[in-house]
Amino acid sequence: MKSNCFASPEEMLKHWQGHRQLTRRVIEAFPEDAFSTFSVGGMRPFSELAVEMIDMAGPGIRGFVTGEWDLSNKPKETAGQPTNHTKEAILQRWDAVTAAIDEGWVQIPEEHFHDVVAAFGQYEQAVYSTVLYFIDNEIHHRGQGTVYLRALGIQPPPFWDRPM
Amino acid sequence: MKSNCFASPEEMLKHWQGHRQLTRRVIEAFPEDAFSTFSVGGMRPFSELAVEMIDMAGPGIRGFVTGEWDLSNKPKETAGQPTNHTKEAILQRWDAVTAAIDEGWVQIPEEHFHDVVAAFGQYEQAVYSTVLYFIDNEIHHRGQGTVYLRALGIQPPPFWDRPM
Repeated sequence: MKSNCFASPEEMLKHWQGHRQLTRRVIEAFPEDAFSTFSVGGMRPFSELAVEMIDMAGPGIRGFVTGEWDLSNKPKETAGQPTNHTKEAILQRWDAVTAAIDEGWVQIPEEHFHDVVAAFGQYEQAVYSTVLYFIDNEIHHRGQGTVYLRALGIQPPPFWDRPM
Repeated sequence: MKSNCFASPEEMLKHWQGHRQLTRRVIEAFPEDAFSTFSVGGMRPFSELAVEMIDMAGPGIRGFVTGEWDLSNKPKETAGQPTNHTKEAILQRWDAVTAAIDEGWVQIPEEHFHDVVAAFGQYEQAVYSTVLYFIDNEIHHRGQGTVYLRALGIQPPPFWDRPM
């Protein structure tokens, strides 16, 4: 095992969950209607971006722990089409995934972060890199969501307000 | 030393520079005029967001290596005001910072990533956490820039097209 370390699994869990808390606040900041209908430049509404995050992180953490990549609960939505997801329904799914990450993360053996795994049966790379992809994808889409909020005249929750 | 490791410094350098390559392509994707003038919802134009990234990462990597936090080259721009930065000027500064990161990163002793340092004289946290903040801030603002591009009718460079 490498002793040459940038950050520990515990530190990265705290980092990821800190981002997830902020994304949750961004979901909450949307008016109900705009959440599932508003967008800029023909992009997906924020509800669909949130569903993408949920459907990455939920099956993702299960895949890291069990090696099984069940895609049965992938979103049915097609890009660009408004969804029927209410904020409450999405926040419930969000919180379930948050708990699943806390529960699953500690079951991942440290060495596994450097195993090469075909996440979702197709994205073959080291587990640590897939985890970073999940976090980065969330930050990327949340950043887009903050533009939606600004365009709606709403001040987004501050980016820096996270446990660090 | 912790043997309990999520990712190594070498892996995180590759990760950061992969993001920087993508952000560079997003800068290139802007029409010259829109780069320093266009925005959505009263936000800063992408030139100013790019300057913020440069003025974090450049002095930041120097601070990690030397312990000195020289703020003399902080941007003079005020949020919301268009800048006079051309794409060419920004890309030159971008590439200089990319080289400075490559040169500086390997001089950071591994233990230093867990030293608590007041980055820029004020943000007191572990160095690894400040590095993650720099990367995340870049992803966040780049995500916003991709909304600007979509609103301009331009397809952004794909988020997933990075070395991983």
